[in-house]
Amino acid sequence: MKKTIILFSGDFDKVLAAFIIANGAAAMGDDVTMFFTFWGLNCLRKPVAPAHKKSFLQGMFGGMMPKGPAKLGLSKMNFAGMGPKMMRRVMRQQNVTTLEELMQTAKDQGIKMIACTMSMDVLGFKEDELIDGLEFAGVATYLGEADESNVNLFI
Amino acid sequence: MKKTIILFSGDFDKVLAAFIIANGAAAMGDDVTMFFTFWGLNCLRKPVAPAHKKSFLQGMFGGMMPKGPAKLGLSKMNFAGMGPKMMRRVMRQQNVTTLEELMQTAKDQGIKMIACTMSMDVLGFKEDELIDGLEFAGVATYLGEADESNVNLFI
Amino acid sequence: MKKTIILFSGDFDKVLAAFIIANGAAAMGDDVTMFFTFWGLNCLRKPVAPAHKKSFLQGMFGGMMPKGPAKLGLSKMNFAGMGPKMMRRVMRQQNVTTLEELMQTAKDQGIKMIACTMSMDVLGFKEDELIDGLEFAGVATYLGEADESNVNLFI
Repeated sequence: MKKTIILFSGDFDKVLAAFIIANGAAAMGDDVTMFFTFWGLNCLRKPVAPAHKKSFLQGMFGGMMPKGPAKLGLSKMNFAGMGPKMMRRVMRQQNVTTLEELMQTAKDQGIKMIACTMSMDVLGFKEDELIDGLEFAGVATYLGEADESNVNLFI
Repeated sequence: MKKTIILFSGDFDKVLAAFIIANGAAAMGDDVTMFFTFWGLNCLRKPVAPAHKKSFLQGMFGGMMPKGPAKLGLSKMNFAGMGPKMMRRVMRQQNVTTLEELMQTAKDQGIKMIACTMSMDVLGFKEDELIDGLEFAGVATYLGEADESNVNLFI
Repeated sequence: MKKTIILFSGDFDKVLAAFIIANGAAAMGDDVTMFFTFWGLNCLRKPVAPAHKKSFLQGMFGGMMPKGPAKLGLSKMNFAGMGPKMMRRVMRQQNVTTLEELMQTAKDQGIKMIACTMSMDVLGFKEDELIDGLEFAGVATYLGEADESNVNLFI
């Protein structure tokens, strides 16, 4: 059966959870759709992206928010960025897959990754500032996918 | 098919997401129930409400928490209230519907809005302190609605 | 019908909401599975637990995170621990069941409580540091349960 995940959060730990669930479902043969909205778009940003003319506020949002998975913070115990570094180190020690590997696996497994166009407009993200292989759509597309799914999570 | 959303969060960005999803589903012909609990009740508060005798602690909770959609903060990058102002301005520039309009549309589309009575008791909110058109019920009512729905989100 | 809840959060208010929903569903005759992951494991920790040899980082995580329900903070208005104390007092005044009672009821009602083994590895929690009566499994087990359920929430 199909599964959908709305990834609203940009926190390292929640992004990690989302991709672990999504990859687990895909590995079990499910069609999985991930819908990235608001801060959830941050994990899709290229660390270095083409420059675009943006409004002052969009420039501020874009400049202050993390660019890609390596820059995400923890939802708890972030300690100005030390928290994610600690968690990444423990994950290596425990041989847990990294977030970057999980995102690559998601692509390889054919998980449909949709970036929310309304959120992109508000935060001022252009298509070429986000990683390749995404689809771009709005809430109606998400709802269509969710209607065909038996597990729908908001993370 | 029916949809339910538990709105637990009082963050501007999450409340916005909840109403965008709810209105999208209603526009596609779905019956939608929103169940407002804990901080999610804040967006339902009247900016100016009748006075009630409350316990000291309930008075403190009520006094410190935002009264209505105009006062909500962001879950990230709130900057002491500047964040929501920035986001509202960008939303206007991008012609995105405001939260207040989304809430009105939800009413107009007949979305069932239920305020959680247990949370109201804990936080000390009386019925006439919340906006008109709500139903008042507990978790059993939510579960009854969710049982008939194919998409159930916790936001 | 079956229900599942992923409890990712360790915030007092969200843990409370998760157990209220879970117990409500169980009381209505549903099979309920709760899957505790990341910070959600904190509510399962024994206040006093056997000592284990851990890596430096796991020791830090374990030392800094709350041990059991009595130590959890609020997601909003925590005020260095005053918030949860206030909320607990109001809950007593309003005769709302305590979190500890809700957790006991969950056990008594036969709610299946699964601790996520991958999160336990990362955070360095051993089985005997968590309360009795848990099952230990990974995301595949969760997905199997979710596939048979009609309400699946991520909290």
